[in-house]
Amino acid sequence: MGATTDFMTPEQRAELEALRAQRYETKRATVPALEDLLYTPVPILDHGFVRVVDYMGDDGAIVQAARVSYGRGTRRLSDDRGLIRYLMRHRHTTPFEMCEIKLHVKLPIFIARQWIRHRTANVNEYSARYSILDREFYIPDAEVLRAQSQTNRQGRGEQLSPDEAARVQELLREDAERAYAHYEELLNESPAGESPDEEQSGLARELARMNLSLNFYTQWYWKIDLHNLLHFLSLRADDHAQYEIRVYAEAILEHIVQPWVPFAYEAFCDYRMNSGNLSAGALSVVRALVAGRRAEADALRKESGISAREWRELMATLELDE
Amino acid sequence: MGATTDFMTPEQRAELEALRAQRYETKRATVPALEDLLYTPVPILDHGFVRVVDYMGDDGAIVQAARVSYGRGTRRLSDDRGLIRYLMRHRHTTPFEMCEIKLHVKLPIFIARQWIRHRTANVNEYSARYSILDREFYIPDAEVLRAQSQTNRQGRGEQLSPDEAARVQELLREDAERAYAHYEELLNESPAGESPDEEQSGLARELARMNLSLNFYTQWYWKIDLHNLLHFLSLRADDHAQYEIRVYAEAILEHIVQPWVPFAYEAFCDYRMNSGNLSAGALSVVRALVAGRRAEADALRKESGISAREWRELMATLELDE
Amino acid sequence: MGATTDFMTPEQRAELEALRAQRYETKRATVPALEDLLYTPVPILDHGFVRVVDYMGDDGAIVQAARVSYGRGTRRLSDDRGLIRYLMRHRHTTPFEMCEIKLHVKLPIFIARQWIRHRTANVNEYSARYSILDREFYIPDAEVLRAQSQTNRQGRGEQLSPDEAARVQELLREDAERAYAHYEELLNESPAGESPDEEQSGLARELARMNLSLNFYTQWYWKIDLHNLLHFLSLRADDHAQYEIRVYAEAILEHIVQPWVPFAYEAFCDYRMNSGNLSAGALSVVRALVAGRRAEADALRKESGISAREWRELMATLELDE
Amino acid sequence: MGATTDFMTPEQRAELEALRAQRYETKRATVPALEDLLYTPVPILDHGFVRVVDYMGDDGAIVQAARVSYGRGTRRLSDDRGLIRYLMRHRHTTPFEMCEIKLHVKLPIFIARQWIRHRTANVNEYSARYSILDREFYIPDAEVLRAQSQTNRQGRGEQLSPDEAARVQELLREDAERAYAHYEELLNESPAGESPDEEQSGLARELARMNLSLNFYTQWYWKIDLHNLLHFLSLRADDHAQYEIRVYAEAILEHIVQPWVPFAYEAFCDYRMNSGNLSAGALSVVRALVAGRRAEADALRKESGISAREWRELMATLELDE
Repeated sequence: MGATTDFMTPEQRAELEALRAQRYETKRATVPALEDLLYTPVPILDHGFVRVVDYMGDDGAIVQAARVSYGRGTRRLSDDRGLIRYLMRHRHTTPFEMCEIKLHVKLPIFIARQWIRHRTANVNEYSARYSILDREFYIPDAEVLRAQSQTNRQGRGEQLSPDEAARVQELLREDAERAYAHYEELLNESPAGESPDEEQSGLARELARMNLSLNFYTQWYWKIDLHNLLHFLSLRADDHAQYEIRVYAEAILEHIVQPWVPFAYEAFCDYRMNSGNLSAGALSVVRALVAGRRAEADALRKESGISAREWRELMATLELDE
Repeated sequence: MGATTDFMTPEQRAELEALRAQRYETKRATVPALEDLLYTPVPILDHGFVRVVDYMGDDGAIVQAARVSYGRGTRRLSDDRGLIRYLMRHRHTTPFEMCEIKLHVKLPIFIARQWIRHRTANVNEYSARYSILDREFYIPDAEVLRAQSQTNRQGRGEQLSPDEAARVQELLREDAERAYAHYEELLNESPAGESPDEEQSGLARELARMNLSLNFYTQWYWKIDLHNLLHFLSLRADDHAQYEIRVYAEAILEHIVQPWVPFAYEAFCDYRMNSGNLSAGALSVVRALVAGRRAEADALRKESGISAREWRELMATLELDE
Repeated sequence: MGATTDFMTPEQRAELEALRAQRYETKRATVPALEDLLYTPVPILDHGFVRVVDYMGDDGAIVQAARVSYGRGTRRLSDDRGLIRYLMRHRHTTPFEMCEIKLHVKLPIFIARQWIRHRTANVNEYSARYSILDREFYIPDAEVLRAQSQTNRQGRGEQLSPDEAARVQELLREDAERAYAHYEELLNESPAGESPDEEQSGLARELARMNLSLNFYTQWYWKIDLHNLLHFLSLRADDHAQYEIRVYAEAILEHIVQPWVPFAYEAFCDYRMNSGNLSAGALSVVRALVAGRRAEADALRKESGISAREWRELMATLELDE
Repeated sequence: MGATTDFMTPEQRAELEALRAQRYETKRATVPALEDLLYTPVPILDHGFVRVVDYMGDDGAIVQAARVSYGRGTRRLSDDRGLIRYLMRHRHTTPFEMCEIKLHVKLPIFIARQWIRHRTANVNEYSARYSILDREFYIPDAEVLRAQSQTNRQGRGEQLSPDEAARVQELLREDAERAYAHYEELLNESPAGESPDEEQSGLARELARMNLSLNFYTQWYWKIDLHNLLHFLSLRADDHAQYEIRVYAEAILEHIVQPWVPFAYEAFCDYRMNSGNLSAGALSVVRALVAGRRAEADALRKESGISAREWRELMATLELDE
C-alpha cells in the first residue's frame, strides 16, 4: 500500500505533509495504527484514491456505548472481543454506530453514482458548478475489460481479446480527450482566468460540465458511521459488485477498517462477509443432508420447493457437486 | 400542460393508457384533481418529464395526523386551512410527512446527480448495468445558454450571442452523438440481441456506459413525503437553483403539489417560498428603519455589523434603493 | 380477528364508520383485501390496537419500480412472484421501499419507547403536552407474567405462580390508578374544562403527565415503507422480542402485510423470518457434516473455532442433538 | 459550570478521572477548549447531566469539507469565519455535517421521549430490559411549577402558589417513591443478586419497569453531526420548548457548541437563533412601514391578509406597540 502521490499537485502534497506533521494532545480514544495512515491516500484505479481525514472511536467505543458506561466499558481486551462478536452476531447494530470515519475519495463519476445511493452518509462533493474539473478520466486496464455476462444480466463475463481491449481503450481515451478539449473550449477560460478566445463569452461552468463523460473523476468528503460503513462494504466488497467500486470497498475494508477496529473487523468477516444466509427451504435441505439423505438430492430439491437457481447456489455454498 | 408523448414508444403509450383507463373503488382519501393527472407525463426540457405514479393522503390527512384522530380530523374546510397554516408557520413538520407521492422522472444525468443529494426519498433508477440507455441527450435552448456569472461563482450571467450559442449546441450535439455511436460499438449488440460485429465480444454494459456524457437522460421512480418534497422544492424552485433542475421543481410545485394539497401549497408559498429570513443584524436594521431612521442608513449599516453583501440583499428584500 | 370496539367512544366509532362507508373512484393500485380492513382496529393487549389508515402500492408496484416501467411492469402474476422472490433473496431492497403504509397504533408507553427506536418511519404521537391522556393502562394477563430468565439477561423465564401473578397484577393496577387519580388532581381540570378545586390553579399538562407510569397507553400515526416495515417485523416478530411488542408485530405481519402484498409476504417468510444466517465457522461445520463427518462433532467444534453458545445455536438450527 | 459529581458513584467517578487523565498524541483536528471539558458532566435539573464523550472536527473541518480540500482549507482565520457565515446564511448545510459529537446524557424519561423524536442521531440507551434502573426521579423546583397557559395550549402560564407547588412536589415525590419501592418488590432481587423474598420468583425486568413513572431518569449515548445538532438546538433551545428540555439544549449550546466551533456558533446565533422569518404577508407590511406608512397600521393589516395572531407576533418582532 505504498501511496504514490503522482495524482497530486506539489501544493496538495505540501498541504498533506503539513497535516501529517502536526501533533496534538488529546484525551479522546486514539488508534495508533490508524494515526499512521491518517491523511495519506491509498491509490485506487488509474487516478483515484481513498484517504482517512478523521475518525471517532475505536473497538472500545463500541463496548462503551453498548454498556452506556461512564468510563471505557471493560478493561480486559478479551471481554471487548467477546461482546463485539455477540453484538455483531445478534445484529445489535446501534453500538457500531458510535464510531465514525471521514474519508476523502476520488472516483469516476459512474462509480460515484452507484456509491451515492447509500443515503446514510454525509457528503461534500467537489462542485463542477463552481469549479473546473481536472483532465482526469478512467481507462480500465485490459484485464478488467470483459464482455457482458451470459448468465448474469448485470455482470461481466469473458475477458476481451487483446485486440478488442486495445480498441476499447483507444476509443474511451479519444472520446474523453475530445470531451475535455471541448469542455475547455466551451468554458473559454484558462486556469489563470483569461479567455483564450476574446470574441467568445464562454459558457457557464454549470452547463459546460455536461459535455464530460461518466468516466471523468470527481471527488468528495464522505463521512459515515461504522455500522453503515460495514453495510456498504458488505454490498460493495461482494463478488456481485461492479469491479470498479469493489476495489474501493476492498481497500477500505482491508487498509482502513482492519487497523481501525480489529475486533469489529474480525466479527464482520465471520458473521457477515463470509457467512451464508439459508432460506427456509435451504435449511430444510441442509437438515436432511446432515441427517444422511445425500443420495436423495432430487427428492430433496422437490420437497423443499426451492428453484433450480437457488439449488445451484446452495450446492456451491455447501461445496457439493450437483 | 398539454402532455406531448413523442418521447414515448407506442408500447409505452399503450401501457400508460391502460393505467389511465383503470377504475377501482377505494375507501382511501382521494383527490379528484390529482386523479385527472395520474400517470400522464408533464414534458420538461427537450426529452424529460415528470409524472405522478401514485399518491397517499390529501390536505385532510395532514389535519388527521396532527390531531391523531380516529376519523378525518375536522369537518369544516376553513378549520383545516387554518390548522395547516399554523403547522407550516410554526414548523410543525411531522403532519406533512403523512402525505406521500411517487413520481416517475426522466432527467439529464448531471441534474440527476444534483437531485439525488436529497437523501430523504426512495429511488429506483433505470440501470445501465442491466439495460441499454436510449439515444436521448439534453441540448439546451439558445436562450438558456449563458456565460459564467461575474458575481456568483455558481451561476449564469449574460446570454450568449446567437453565433456562440449555435456553436455550443453544435458541439454538444456532435459529442453526444459520437459518444452514443461509440457506446453502441462498444456494446456490439443490437436491440434485437444480435452482435453487429461477430468478430467482437462486445463490452459489458456496466463498462460501456462510462463513455456517455452527463447530458444523457436517465429516469427513475422517486417517492417522497410531502414535508421532504416541500423542502426539496424550496431549494430547487429557488432563483439560485440551476435552471435545468428548477424547471422540474416548478412543474412539480405548480402542476402537482397545488392540485394535490391546495391548503399546504398556499401555506408553503406564504411561509416558505415567498418569505424572508432576516438575521439578528438585519432585524435590528429593520426595527430602526420602521422607527423612522431611514436617513441614517450608513450609521445603521455600521451599527448592525452586517456585511456589504448582506446589506445589499436586505435593501433588495425591503425594496429600497441603496 | 373480529375487531371489538369497546376501547372507542361512541363518537370515535361513528367517525370510523363514516370513513368505512365512503367510496371513491381511483386509478391508483388498489388491494381489495386491504380495503376490507381499512380503518378497522385489530385489538391487541388489553386496550391497544393497530389499524390501517392508508396505503400506497401493492405487489405490482414493487415489480413496476424494479423495472422503472411505464405501466404495471409485468402482466403475468407468476413473473411478479418470481421477480419479488429474486429481489428479496438478493437483498435488492429499494423496490420494496415503493410501497407505503400508514397505521394508527395504540400501545403502552414502555412499548412505544422500544418501537420509536426504528428511525425510518414518520410519526405523529398524541401529545400529552397539549391534551389529557385517558385512564387506560396495561395490566398483563397472568400467563405472560414471568420471572427474569436465568439464561438470557434480557428475557423472561418461568411463569409466575398464580398467587404471585395476582399480587403483581394488583400492585400494577393500584399504582396506575393512584397515578391517574393524582394526575387528575395535579391538572385540576375536568373534561368539560372547569376546575374541580377553584382554590388551585392546576399544573400545566406538560408537567402533570410525568406522574403517569410507563404502562399507560399512548397512540400515534405511524407511516413506513414496506422495506423498513419488514425490517421492523424481522426484529419485533422474532422470538427474542419482548412479548408486548411481538404481539403488535405479529398482528401487522399476519393481518396486514399478508393480505396487502402476498408475494412479498411469502418471500419475506422464506428468505428472512424463517431463514438462518450461518457464520463462516458454522458454514465450515455444516460442510463437514454434510460430507459425512457427523461422528467427529468435537473435532469440528474445535476446528471451526466457534464458541460453545454458537455451537448450541447451530445444533438447534440443524435439529441435531448435541 | 463547576461540575458536581454527587450523582455519580465512587466507581463512576474513578472511571471518569481515569479517562480525563489519559493523554494521546494525534494528528486529528483537536480543540483544546473542548478537550478541557471532555468527559466531565455538566449538571442539569436535579439528577441529570450532559457530558462530551468524543468529538470529530472543528471550525476548520467545515471549511475543509466545503472546499473538498487536500489540507486544512484556508490558512487565515478571518477567511474561515467569513466562509462559515456564508454557508450558514445560504443554508449550505452539508459542510456542517462533517463535524460530529458524542454526548452522554442523563434525563427524565418524559424528556427522553421528546428528545428521541429527532431521528438523525445515533442512540444507545441504558436498557431496563437488561438492567435495573436507579432510584432517581425528577421533582421540579417550585419556581418552574406553573399552571396550564391560557393562551398556548402546549405551554405553561402563571407560577403556582407556594402552597400548591409544595403539594405538587409532595405528590410527585410520594408516587415516585412508592413506584420505585414496588418496582423493587416486583423484581424481588437485591443489587447483590439475592432474592429478598425467597418465596417469590420475582418479575422479569422488562415487565417490572412498566411500574415506574415518566419522571424517572434514563441515560443514553447520543451521537449527532453538527448540522443536525444545530437544528435540534434551534427547536429545543427556543422559548416554545418545554423548560425541562430547554435547559439541556441551552447547556449544549453555551457550554459545548460555543467552545467547540466558535465561528459556527456565532453564525448560528446570528442567522438562526436570533433571526426572524417573515411571511410573504409580513414582508409586505414591513416594506410599507419602512416606506413611512406607520400611521396606516389597520389598513396594512387588512391588505396583507395576515391573521390577528401573526400580526401580534410581527409587531413584537418589530418592537412596535400595537
